[in-house]
Amino acid sequence: MKLSQLGEFGLIDEIKRIVGQSNSVTAGIGDDAAVVALDKKRYMLLTTDMLIEGVHFTAKDAPQAVGHKAMACNLSDIAAMGGVPKFALVSLGAPASMPVEKIKAVYRGMQRVARKFGVTIVGGDTNKNNKLVISVALTGEVKKKRLVTRAGARAGDVIFVSGALGDSYKSKHHLHFTPRLKEAAHLVKDLLPHAMIDISDGLVADLHHVLKAGGVGARIYEEAIRRRGGCSLKQALYDGEDFELLFTLTKKQTERFINTKPFFAYAIGKITPAKGRLELVTKDENIKILDNKGFRHF
Amino acid sequence: MKLSQLGEFGLIDEIKRIVGQSNSVTAGIGDDAAVVALDKKRYMLLTTDMLIEGVHFTAKDAPQAVGHKAMACNLSDIAAMGGVPKFALVSLGAPASMPVEKIKAVYRGMQRVARKFGVTIVGGDTNKNNKLVISVALTGEVKKKRLVTRAGARAGDVIFVSGALGDSYKSKHHLHFTPRLKEAAHLVKDLLPHAMIDISDGLVADLHHVLKAGGVGARIYEEAIRRRGGCSLKQALYDGEDFELLFTLTKKQTERFINTKPFFAYAIGKITPAKGRLELVTKDENIKILDNKGFRHF
Repeated sequence: MKLSQLGEFGLIDEIKRIVGQSNSVTAGIGDDAAVVALDKKRYMLLTTDMLIEGVHFTAKDAPQAVGHKAMACNLSDIAAMGGVPKFALVSLGAPASMPVEKIKAVYRGMQRVARKFGVTIVGGDTNKNNKLVISVALTGEVKKKRLVTRAGARAGDVIFVSGALGDSYKSKHHLHFTPRLKEAAHLVKDLLPHAMIDISDGLVADLHHVLKAGGVGARIYEEAIRRRGGCSLKQALYDGEDFELLFTLTKKQTERFINTKPFFAYAIGKITPAKGRLELVTKDENIKILDNKGFRHF
Repeated sequence: MKLSQLGEFGLIDEIKRIVGQSNSVTAGIGDDAAVVALDKKRYMLLTTDMLIEGVHFTAKDAPQAVGHKAMACNLSDIAAMGGVPKFALVSLGAPASMPVEKIKAVYRGMQRVARKFGVTIVGGDTNKNNKLVISVALTGEVKKKRLVTRAGARAGDVIFVSGALGDSYKSKHHLHFTPRLKEAAHLVKDLLPHAMIDISDGLVADLHHVLKAGGVGARIYEEAIRRRGGCSLKQALYDGEDFELLFTLTKKQTERFINTKPFFAYAIGKITPAKGRLELVTKDENIKILDNKGFRHF
């Protein structure tokens, strides 16, 4: 079987089988970041994302923006766990013919957003490659009592999203987004959502991750979903690379949340008991079942 | 200026300037692994290495061996700091047409050597690419009193190397080597070398790193250098990817060391006060100056 037939999530399942799970790991392969023991009060978070020219950005994109994205998508993963990012490692492949100024601009883009959120780039590796490849690994910390994973959504929870969705790639949002670390820190401190994830694979795919991990279903409303720059519903549902937070709150938490300022997220629907079933209520009040499709890496 | 003109070490200097250094970092960009605060008694170590098809391995190499190398070269970096490796993240780029069995073999190779040394693969990222690219990031721990860096060599120290050198790529040693974690653990527990590094860029290049970091020089002996499978002196000096430990011991430590069993390293020369000067004493007792050349990534 080829990788394209198995698909990314199939591959992740195969990897889990090979790698197994250790007792020292609280949440491993599959969540936004891995969670491992640090000390009595804290967990360490570990995440990594690789950006490849021609897949996650183009040769024409501004190198500083490419660097920004390489760091920010990792920061977004730490945000999704309620964590505080700490140290980054940067592995880079680049053509020998690339102007040094371009590489430096990539690092400046990474460094700028890293510093903004208190992260230190502590090391890395540089290699010859036919095109630009950047892999960032990031550590974080989270107080044990504030850890939020994608598991834990309960029937009755209200589903929130922190921003508009869709058309991230063409609009260049994916190169300039602000990782939702401040919003996530506020959420875990004041409310502690049952479940949280960052929308990187697309709303439908990532909501399905939440439903699978929690053994629940969801009903979302077409009219509630905010679309970036007038993009289509389909784009808002499936495009991916939005890097917004999706989280679920009880009704009581929801009442508190909608009274906080600044109000940075909007409700798109509710968690239901219908395991794995994702329903979309259309404008004309029909119900569509949205199966687990989204951005596929293979 | 192009990357090929600046060179890898020039690029690293530029990156250091952009990234700066934080107070929380004891040893950052430039050593085998970054050293950051963990708790009162321990440092955390962080390292990463990226392997690219056509640069660090070929499409014909056994995928399990490629996986082994991807993990083992990171383990070697943790060994060089006297540390204990803990958690790994794996970022992968692979063609959609690649057989799933091949990818699984890569992961089995990583997992086998990871488990052998107590490491858990906790997460990662998978992406589409035109060829196989593997980036591993690895954390480790070291007791503060046992940390060894590449800095600290003193005039009079004896220089040791843990195995034969040269011809690693063609002989496939680079795909099958055992990272020297056990040897390093023994060294830091019993002796605590002044300086230690793993030989990845080549003996001359990595010894120059030690000389630069310590503000010292060295004199090494052609006859003392063990060559892999009868390769040339030039290969033993410059090839790289040996993944052996190079470390320095005082005369007193040396006496203790050569009486330990098993004896896993041999002396190649001495540290001198001649800052930055690396002398090779040839078989016919001439002295050659070896400047800072070696494997170049660009």
